[in-house]
Amino acid sequence: MRVQYLIPGPMSKGPLGRGEMERRAALLQSWAFAGTTVDVVDVPEGPASIESVYEEMLAIPETLAGVARAERDGYDAVIIGCFGDPGLDGAREIVAMPVIGPGQCSMLLAAELGHRFSVITVMESIVAPIAHQAAKAGLHGKLASVRSAEIPVLELMKDRDATMRRMIEVGRDVVKRDRADAIVLGCMTMSFLNVADELAAELGVPVINAGKAALKAAESLVSQGLAHSKRAYPIPPKLRTTPQEVVA
Amino acid sequence: MRVQYLIPGPMSKGPLGRGEMERRAALLQSWAFAGTTVDVVDVPEGPASIESVYEEMLAIPETLAGVARAERDGYDAVIIGCFGDPGLDGAREIVAMPVIGPGQCSMLLAAELGHRFSVITVMESIVAPIAHQAAKAGLHGKLASVRSAEIPVLELMKDRDATMRRMIEVGRDVVKRDRADAIVLGCMTMSFLNVADELAAELGVPVINAGKAALKAAESLVSQGLAHSKRAYPIPPKLRTTPQEVVA
Amino acid sequence: MRVQYLIPGPMSKGPLGRGEMERRAALLQSWAFAGTTVDVVDVPEGPASIESVYEEMLAIPETLAGVARAERDGYDAVIIGCFGDPGLDGAREIVAMPVIGPGQCSMLLAAELGHRFSVITVMESIVAPIAHQAAKAGLHGKLASVRSAEIPVLELMKDRDATMRRMIEVGRDVVKRDRADAIVLGCMTMSFLNVADELAAELGVPVINAGKAALKAAESLVSQGLAHSKRAYPIPPKLRTTPQEVVA
Amino acid sequence: MRVQYLIPGPMSKGPLGRGEMERRAALLQSWAFAGTTVDVVDVPEGPASIESVYEEMLAIPETLAGVARAERDGYDAVIIGCFGDPGLDGAREIVAMPVIGPGQCSMLLAAELGHRFSVITVMESIVAPIAHQAAKAGLHGKLASVRSAEIPVLELMKDRDATMRRMIEVGRDVVKRDRADAIVLGCMTMSFLNVADELAAELGVPVINAGKAALKAAESLVSQGLAHSKRAYPIPPKLRTTPQEVVA
Amino acid sequence: MRVQYLIPGPMSKGPLGRGEMERRAALLQSWAFAGTTVDVVDVPEGPASIESVYEEMLAIPETLAGVARAERDGYDAVIIGCFGDPGLDGAREIVAMPVIGPGQCSMLLAAELGHRFSVITVMESIVAPIAHQAAKAGLHGKLASVRSAEIPVLELMKDRDATMRRMIEVGRDVVKRDRADAIVLGCMTMSFLNVADELAAELGVPVINAGKAALKAAESLVSQGLAHSKRAYPIPPKLRTTPQEVVA
Amino acid sequence: MRVQYLIPGPMSKGPLGRGEMERRAALLQSWAFAGTTVDVVDVPEGPASIESVYEEMLAIPETLAGVARAERDGYDAVIIGCFGDPGLDGAREIVAMPVIGPGQCSMLLAAELGHRFSVITVMESIVAPIAHQAAKAGLHGKLASVRSAEIPVLELMKDRDATMRRMIEVGRDVVKRDRADAIVLGCMTMSFLNVADELAAELGVPVINAGKAALKAAESLVSQGLAHSKRAYPIPPKLRTTPQEVVA
Repeated sequence: MRVQYLIPGPMSKGPLGRGEMERRAALLQSWAFAGTTVDVVDVPEGPASIESVYEEMLAIPETLAGVARAERDGYDAVIIGCFGDPGLDGAREIVAMPVIGPGQCSMLLAAELGHRFSVITVMESIVAPIAHQAAKAGLHGKLASVRSAEIPVLELMKDRDATMRRMIEVGRDVVKRDRADAIVLGCMTMSFLNVADELAAELGVPVINAGKAALKAAESLVSQGLAHSKRAYPIPPKLRTTPQEVVA
Repeated sequence: MRVQYLIPGPMSKGPLGRGEMERRAALLQSWAFAGTTVDVVDVPEGPASIESVYEEMLAIPETLAGVARAERDGYDAVIIGCFGDPGLDGAREIVAMPVIGPGQCSMLLAAELGHRFSVITVMESIVAPIAHQAAKAGLHGKLASVRSAEIPVLELMKDRDATMRRMIEVGRDVVKRDRADAIVLGCMTMSFLNVADELAAELGVPVINAGKAALKAAESLVSQGLAHSKRAYPIPPKLRTTPQEVVA
Repeated sequence: MRVQYLIPGPMSKGPLGRGEMERRAALLQSWAFAGTTVDVVDVPEGPASIESVYEEMLAIPETLAGVARAERDGYDAVIIGCFGDPGLDGAREIVAMPVIGPGQCSMLLAAELGHRFSVITVMESIVAPIAHQAAKAGLHGKLASVRSAEIPVLELMKDRDATMRRMIEVGRDVVKRDRADAIVLGCMTMSFLNVADELAAELGVPVINAGKAALKAAESLVSQGLAHSKRAYPIPPKLRTTPQEVVA
Repeated sequence: MRVQYLIPGPMSKGPLGRGEMERRAALLQSWAFAGTTVDVVDVPEGPASIESVYEEMLAIPETLAGVARAERDGYDAVIIGCFGDPGLDGAREIVAMPVIGPGQCSMLLAAELGHRFSVITVMESIVAPIAHQAAKAGLHGKLASVRSAEIPVLELMKDRDATMRRMIEVGRDVVKRDRADAIVLGCMTMSFLNVADELAAELGVPVINAGKAALKAAESLVSQGLAHSKRAYPIPPKLRTTPQEVVA
Repeated sequence: MRVQYLIPGPMSKGPLGRGEMERRAALLQSWAFAGTTVDVVDVPEGPASIESVYEEMLAIPETLAGVARAERDGYDAVIIGCFGDPGLDGAREIVAMPVIGPGQCSMLLAAELGHRFSVITVMESIVAPIAHQAAKAGLHGKLASVRSAEIPVLELMKDRDATMRRMIEVGRDVVKRDRADAIVLGCMTMSFLNVADELAAELGVPVINAGKAALKAAESLVSQGLAHSKRAYPIPPKLRTTPQEVVA
Repeated sequence: MRVQYLIPGPMSKGPLGRGEMERRAALLQSWAFAGTTVDVVDVPEGPASIESVYEEMLAIPETLAGVARAERDGYDAVIIGCFGDPGLDGAREIVAMPVIGPGQCSMLLAAELGHRFSVITVMESIVAPIAHQAAKAGLHGKLASVRSAEIPVLELMKDRDATMRRMIEVGRDVVKRDRADAIVLGCMTMSFLNVADELAAELGVPVINAGKAALKAAESLVSQGLAHSKRAYPIPPKLRTTPQEVVA
């Protein structure tokens, strides 16, 4: 199967550049089941990183176009490469293949691994949006907390050791104070640091790499022949070529 | 005070046209308290109407630009003229004045008028999004139902009598079957039909005109010197000119 | 429009006296929109202040009589001047005009301003009742906390500086520990100290003056031609002059 | 032990009269454990029956006085003889002995007997208040429905057969349509018809007589040496003779 | 009436032995209403104590057999003598008499005594299971916390003073930090220490002895002629001797 | 990787027999990713099928033994082959590898595919237990309904056409009346009919085969190096060989 990992920002033009896209592609490919091909694609325009609802919103129209393009290009599934799942519900309306949101699917995975999970993210400015995301996924009752490391996205990779130290510190806090028994890394750049296993060993609880979780969710759905419900995400009325039965 | 009613689509270029914008401006002005001036402004580009999450998302970047422009132009508050509140949280991040979402504020108003409210909207395709909106407003426990009249936005004004008959039919249903004791008109074009009072008389429960409710919410906030919490909607980190205290 | 602010206790006979009623009337009038007249009226008997459910209950029968009288006297709306909203649901059953509860309406307003609000009140003895009030308003999911300053109602005005210091201290606590992003002043005497703006500046979050919020809610409803749902608050069967249609 | 069943209305002066009080006392005594004495007492003034929040509120001050009197008279527990539990929280503030609300305790009992319970009451006008009562008792998730037989309290005993037919009809409805697996009789006069067992046999689900349930709750608490938490229902500050430790 | 207290483990063969069973029988009998006979019975095989879900599950088949035997032996009700209520729902399916779970009934009792209760139990390993139990009982909204004393079941009785000191320490914590206003002792061996009253005096909140609460619940149900709903706990289809009406 | 599908009943000795186990093994193998080997194993004793909580409970001890054996035998993950997930939490306590519950994981999958899902199961007697299962998985807010086809497990395969007709009928009902936008087949024998795709085509919503979903969940976890949280499912204290750090 062919899975596209779509970055909802112009990473190739930014500081991380095409090299980072290739690094992520190699990681994703190394995580894939035999028979899966993963391509990493970015969009031509948009914010350099997403650390606010405002930036997430600006990234959406290009992301929606990218998702539609991926389906036309024959991909079996697309992953929206941002933990905030920008454009997820709209994208599901306009295509038939599975559209994976790393935030949604890694929180649902966390819900399977324990009783209460926490999300560790980059900045305080997206703590409340992630809590809303968990609630929309139906997981309000399983969310122990969302806490931020207070490291901007574009700083995360600059000093890996400092980043790890800070993540361990926040991780200990969510386990001890918030009684989390599983942790989700709530940022894709954080996930692509590929330190989830190291953190898990340190903290004594499972730590979910949202990139890996998203890939597995894509492979799982495609392999089951499932996609998102068109009754939940109907084709926008004005785009319909044939009239849909009205849901009485 | 000066309130801008910002239509998140290019209405002046569409079938309803500038005439409809003027009609809405006149209605809003007629509902305003003495001392309030209301202007109706649209955005240069975007979908002709919003009947899906996809269209809502496409409308957002221009809406955000419009909100920022309104603040620069000295408005005291802006109303985002679509029941789905497109761009609401992002807009609140980038300005300091109140940004009113007609959906959010009319559902909160409904919560004050009775025990359980229903929303009547245009199309089945936005029923689930409105339910999510109610949940995000914290009102899941007071929402009796969301039901659609199955009349496209741009058809609503074509046959006022047919529209009224259908709205009364759906209204009776939500009162009897869903036990709603208050109703919100879940579409701005529906609200600007200005039939809420007639419907209320017919159905025996309060019916909220979301346009009127939004104007009153704007006037109420400005008059109290209140705006949305900058701790809830912080300035996006990259737009900050002075470092913000980190929320520990 | 004419709005009555009905104090559910015999303030004119108590230590605060008629002077305080006049001071409140002047404040309310200064907050009103042009065209609104506000009168402050007390009831002939009842507790000197309300710091328990017991006292709230004792205050209710006179309050209900006062609300009925206000309607007969031609008022367009009545505000029950106690944060606990004593008698609210019963009052709405016996009149057709809007009856405003400052507690209910200021918590709904707080729900619009941010993601999580806290209420700061006078005494521990009414912390649980206010939490129940928030739940009944449907806002359980948005309530961060209720905390008390532990200053009796009748002491609040004696040392304004000490009161302010204590409110700032509790306010810092709810922002930091409970992660509130908006605050409601949960006592009318506290609200009429008229310090909400000063507190907001100090704490960095919106602070709602429940008296101002109640007046704006009254003006907003009257101006929209709305009142509480008679299906939610039906006329008591024994008071009906014409048989009501049974809700099947 | 001595239990007082306190009727929150002047039944002895009303149409049911002292004879009905004696009939209820005899029933209660017949339900009691050996060693329990039950007295039925009414209050001197108040509404003839309670079919609205308004009437419930009017009944409360006399009820509170009655509860305080019962404690002074040496009773071990008092039952407030109305399903709406008028004055419950206030009464618990002013006495140390258990104060039983038949509504609260019979809904908690129903929660033990099955997964979902319904309440059958007299009039539509108290359906919403009973739903609020269930929510306040923490049982929102177990309440299947509240439905009314639409028979006024004072009519219930006039035609026992017609009343039974109507209750069976509503009972079948809640079992089949609302999937209730237990039923609470939501009115004391309905409970004192003493038909719960007959209804249970007819409907195939347990039916709770709220009067019997209240008596058993009182006996159970007294026998365990338990009463309501004074931290939950603190003595009103102004009534305290010794300063209470502040709950930090 | 005859009540059986069924211990879901082979206590007579374990370190506590038959002497402890007799001690518990004497306590239960001393708590009973006149006319109640309580027998304490254990099962032939199973774990020595229950401190995990695993051990609870191993104890269930023998417990189910014991419950069926108790009904055949003519008991009016059975109490499953473990706070985790092992086998409760299955047992209710196979008998018609009341089956009491001390965990479920003491948490419902706590819900009546205050606004928020905490459970104090033996080991961290059953904290999450007890929280699930509270949620299943419908009481999620009233549970303040579950905290463990970190004393294994079989150690509880070895140093009564140390046990008391630790329980007081944890008790102070749940009152102060978790704002509990009532406490449930979440382990039967803890309950049979018979220290609830002493703890209550120390902590200033009601403390529920789960053994006493279970006995009172049994007596209360039998005395009311009530048992668990057979619609909620239907006879397993393969055990039915006559076809049951299908619930449509 | 090696996955064991463990049937919690003695299927090889029952009417379906070893042939059915081989058929299921072949299906599972056909659904697997390259590199996965699936074995189907049953337990030596227990109920012939599980249609009640009672039977589920009887099946658990052998299932727990089977899970422990599977780990000793070197499997990478085990699937408990019953939709009710018998023994799930206990099994997770005693092994370190992933233990998959088809009920839990297919409901979490359904939560990803749409807004509201329904479960279609075999018998009314397990409708309430499945609803409790959904709630425990944290999905109460996304569960539209659980409905039964009223076909005993061992009848499902006898008349495939009749079974399909009944499932389509119930499926139409949950989509139309309960507004489900995704469906889970709530029984493993139902899932191994392998008709989910056919049903999905007929009903217009995704239909989840719980057996396929469980296999994919197992492969996904093993492939990510994840297993269930040992903090959520700690080793039972008495089984610990080294003392565990106490969770403070």
